[in-house]
Amino acid sequence: MGVVIPLEGEKRETAVDRLKALIDDDLSAVNEEILTRMHSQVDLIPELADYLVSAGGKRLRPMLTLAAAKLCGFDGRSHIALATAVEFIHTATLLHDDVVDGSELRRGKTAANLVYGNQSTVLVGDYLFSRSFQLMVTTGHLRVLDILSNAAAVIAEGEVLQMATANNTATTEDTYLQVIQAKTAALFAAATQVGAVIASRPDAEEEALESYGRNLGIAFQLVDDALDYSGSQAKLGKSVGDDFREGKITLPVVLAFRRGDDEERAFWKRTMEKGEQTDADLEHAMALLEKHGTVAATIERARHYGSMAEDALAIFPESETRTVLQDLVEFCISRAH
Amino acid sequence: MGVVIPLEGEKRETAVDRLKALIDDDLSAVNEEILTRMHSQVDLIPELADYLVSAGGKRLRPMLTLAAAKLCGFDGRSHIALATAVEFIHTATLLHDDVVDGSELRRGKTAANLVYGNQSTVLVGDYLFSRSFQLMVTTGHLRVLDILSNAAAVIAEGEVLQMATANNTATTEDTYLQVIQAKTAALFAAATQVGAVIASRPDAEEEALESYGRNLGIAFQLVDDALDYSGSQAKLGKSVGDDFREGKITLPVVLAFRRGDDEERAFWKRTMEKGEQTDADLEHAMALLEKHGTVAATIERARHYGSMAEDALAIFPESETRTVLQDLVEFCISRAH
Repeated sequence: MGVVIPLEGEKRETAVDRLKALIDDDLSAVNEEILTRMHSQVDLIPELADYLVSAGGKRLRPMLTLAAAKLCGFDGRSHIALATAVEFIHTATLLHDDVVDGSELRRGKTAANLVYGNQSTVLVGDYLFSRSFQLMVTTGHLRVLDILSNAAAVIAEGEVLQMATANNTATTEDTYLQVIQAKTAALFAAATQVGAVIASRPDAEEEALESYGRNLGIAFQLVDDALDYSGSQAKLGKSVGDDFREGKITLPVVLAFRRGDDEERAFWKRTMEKGEQTDADLEHAMALLEKHGTVAATIERARHYGSMAEDALAIFPESETRTVLQDLVEFCISRAH
Repeated sequence: MGVVIPLEGEKRETAVDRLKALIDDDLSAVNEEILTRMHSQVDLIPELADYLVSAGGKRLRPMLTLAAAKLCGFDGRSHIALATAVEFIHTATLLHDDVVDGSELRRGKTAANLVYGNQSTVLVGDYLFSRSFQLMVTTGHLRVLDILSNAAAVIAEGEVLQMATANNTATTEDTYLQVIQAKTAALFAAATQVGAVIASRPDAEEEALESYGRNLGIAFQLVDDALDYSGSQAKLGKSVGDDFREGKITLPVVLAFRRGDDEERAFWKRTMEKGEQTDADLEHAMALLEKHGTVAATIERARHYGSMAEDALAIFPESETRTVLQDLVEFCISRAH
């Protein structure tokens, strides 16, 4: 779920660059708010939080909140607090994820849990999570609190479901989709939806932004899961093959298991269900995915959700913000190449 | 921080029994709400949550919210949701604590992390925490959300501080107090304060209930820390000497370190700072606490805070609820005997 956007050596201005330019002042305000709210008299808290927050996360989710608010013509200040709250929920989730997954790399750095220990990582995650609710309360918007606290519960539920389906090669595409809708798309959806809510826009616009965020989130996670088997480590900011080593069943494997023969299924069961892996297994796994074209199929699925995200925004009048948000979809998908 | 109240074989009606009788219907409603809100389509969540929730926690904190609301003459329904939210915050904290401490017993049962693993325990804690915010939002009370989200941040901060002071025999009584105010008293204080808030009572009553909860919480934790070196395992619902084995520096040790000679300080440093412990060390540690009377001194300190709690309620007109809340203080302290 790492946010990895700028590609080294890319010259063309990307959709993210254009998005940043559109909301530049607001994003600076969010970055300041993040630093302020991370503060604690207990030194370890800002230290550990900063280790992750400043590690090059590209603030995609808070940018979505800011852009959604802009698209809705919002002219107050509460989008800053909400965007910060969204980033804190995301960061808290990453911290707890790393403990749960035993990850070794996060955003290209050694994962926080390996540097600071699981204990601090759990507690600082809790701290950021509490802080995110304090921030939401400052906006005085009960519906926003409702939407974001629901999203937080759905995320936690999705993480538990993901854990329950780990190592299970019988996982269906439907269950996989249920997991990524919960663990990733719910926060994207809430991040964009609240932009319409604080601007008091009609239901249709709120629903459109919710749909945009949700479908973008699904596409984003599908691409992330594809990249885990194809990206270079530098591009990903995490290790290639992490999901394979952790026995995390993502769509490329779900499809390869289905499309494979008995011998191949036995391979997936040995390596991902029983966790019996040798050094050569990752390479063989990637060859099987290639043979059945399941990484490409995963990207194709992402395009489907991406199209829904783009179309959802069509009810908004044409504007630079709308265009950039629509282009962002293609950008998220094409980072796979 | 386990809530351990009923003493086997006790015949006399305790303050807790009387408290329960006063708020019986409300407490049943809270128990129902807990079951409803723990529900999830992901089976592991209610299973793990129920493992802890039904394990005999005595619902002290939600009872305080219900009693505070009653003391303030509140006649709505939102105290039920708030009391449930308070219990969920507490339960989430216990789950994460067990992961952090590596506890073996909790409420007299094998700790959840040992049965379900650290991963599930972290995630189900997150789920309950999110659920608690959803519940608060249903009340529509922004000030209540503010108070409880602040308490949640303070608790997490206190847990980090406790971890940072672990194994440090130079910990002062002041730092120790700072830790227990944050990790325990903040939630007690919020639990009682919100009773006045939802009843729209004047500031003086809100402050009185905040003070009652905070001082009761400090006394409660002091007694808990004293019991760790003196209670029987059955009485505590956790293992005697846990704090010693974990190198958690609590007041009995803070005082014994100060009152001890060089040889004794060397003992504390070896066992609690360096963590070099043999089987006989716990017995020797308890002998040193006895020699300097530091368990008794800890209970004396608890009496001081307990008195403040009792006096705080004096501004309320006399009532059965007030009397029971005041008697509850002595009950919490005398469970040490």
